[in-house]
Amino acid sequence: MEKVAIVGVGLIGGSFGLALRRAGFRGEIIGVSSRDALQEATAVGAIDSSATLAEAASGADLIYLSQTVDRILETLPQLRPHVRRGTLVTDAGSTKAAIVRQAAASIPDIAFVGGHPLAGKEKRGASAAEAGLFADHAYVLTPLQGPDTPYLETFRRYLLSMGARVVELTAEEHDQAVAFTSHLPQLVATTLAATLEGQQNASFRVVHGPGLLDMTRLAMSSADLWAAILATNRTAVLAALDAYAKELASMKAAVSAGDIKQCFTRGESFAAKLRRG
Amino acid sequence: MEKVAIVGVGLIGGSFGLALRRAGFRGEIIGVSSRDALQEATAVGAIDSSATLAEAASGADLIYLSQTVDRILETLPQLRPHVRRGTLVTDAGSTKAAIVRQAAASIPDIAFVGGHPLAGKEKRGASAAEAGLFADHAYVLTPLQGPDTPYLETFRRYLLSMGARVVELTAEEHDQAVAFTSHLPQLVATTLAATLEGQQNASFRVVHGPGLLDMTRLAMSSADLWAAILATNRTAVLAALDAYAKELASMKAAVSAGDIKQCFTRGESFAAKLRRG
Repeated sequence: MEKVAIVGVGLIGGSFGLALRRAGFRGEIIGVSSRDALQEATAVGAIDSSATLAEAASGADLIYLSQTVDRILETLPQLRPHVRRGTLVTDAGSTKAAIVRQAAASIPDIAFVGGHPLAGKEKRGASAAEAGLFADHAYVLTPLQGPDTPYLETFRRYLLSMGARVVELTAEEHDQAVAFTSHLPQLVATTLAATLEGQQNASFRVVHGPGLLDMTRLAMSSADLWAAILATNRTAVLAALDAYAKELASMKAAVSAGDIKQCFTRGESFAAKLRRG
Repeated sequence: MEKVAIVGVGLIGGSFGLALRRAGFRGEIIGVSSRDALQEATAVGAIDSSATLAEAASGADLIYLSQTVDRILETLPQLRPHVRRGTLVTDAGSTKAAIVRQAAASIPDIAFVGGHPLAGKEKRGASAAEAGLFADHAYVLTPLQGPDTPYLETFRRYLLSMGARVVELTAEEHDQAVAFTSHLPQLVATTLAATLEGQQNASFRVVHGPGLLDMTRLAMSSADLWAAILATNRTAVLAALDAYAKELASMKAAVSAGDIKQCFTRGESFAAKLRRG
């Protein structure tokens, strides 16, 4: 593997470039992005050079699409005239089924593996990129589509060198899981913050415990980013919201009855397991 | 103010002792608690000596009840035969209306001010106590009941010296606010964790973003502690749950319609205000 093209060099793309370098990659890392993003990524050393999508796609052994979900869906068909046989295309989008379907339709003769690094932080952009961003976090890979390629094993080995916990799931298994573990928590945080906004009580900003900051941090996330994520996982997200609404009704009944023990015990059981990993 | 009795020397009581000392208090700090708690509190320097409730109450200028809500409700009537005129009694319980009513009924001739430091951390016990625990956090005080006493001004001055942001609210205003800013976030976190527990999907423990840890941290809280808090603020908490359930229904409709912008904007508005303080 000698040339890697990173399409979209924000936090994830920039971190992938830095992590690849730290993991020992000695080839060329080419960025495809807006001018500002390319400048940031070059400044932090995440990419060596920049190119148009067409140029980068035609020369790369690995094409890493680290844009938002909606942009990845747009980029895949644009790759078709340029990407050469033998190249591995992968992505880092937050949902997988729509992207995997788009790849099958757009670049059927090209090796494609969907990916999702379950990592991130509040800051965006390559200036916040870190070589260690993927370490100790899950990195989901979906099954290979299209022809076999030795670059798949190379890519996997690099992910492991970065400290990522590589997990193989089908696109549907992935989307089902993140509906509960990522999309539901986001909606719960935003709903909580919107509920408090609706009360228009100025004392809320002062009279609160440290927990409220934890519980509303995700509510600072970008609505545009989330619109694209939710649009590509609507059925699973609505099912997760239904399961949550049912649990909320049980909680309300438990509070009414003064008997919260069972609800709290079930919640604590999951929270404790999550912390054991 | 020469003698202070701290009843219940856990995280809050222990921190109050340490903070009082750091704020320049030179009198005696007497602890009333279980043997283990007294040992911990003595080891960290939060108290000078220990006594029974009767002994401590009869000698103290300030009695600081830093037990759980249910224990504070039990302690107040026990003070009556021992506490002397001129003493200021205060508490650090998580709800205020029930405690303020109990104080009015149990010690009507004694100065009483309800209090609630909106501070805390995950660890419990005096061994986790910190002199700076109250700094930069709200400390709610309810209106004085019973006779006037110069110790109220002394107590307030010490709280300000500790860096606490003293906020005066009626017990009802306080309980209304914390129903939304503390009790609702707790129930939301526990409900989220219980929902995920209900799915019995082992991949959830691995395939999740960093946000899930934030969103389930409160679910590790003690059910017993929360049973007492919720039992003394049930009406306000049920109203908060209703407001939240309504917002959740709007969110579900927004996700279905693919139009989440408004919900996210309202959530972000509150989250941003909260961070500005």
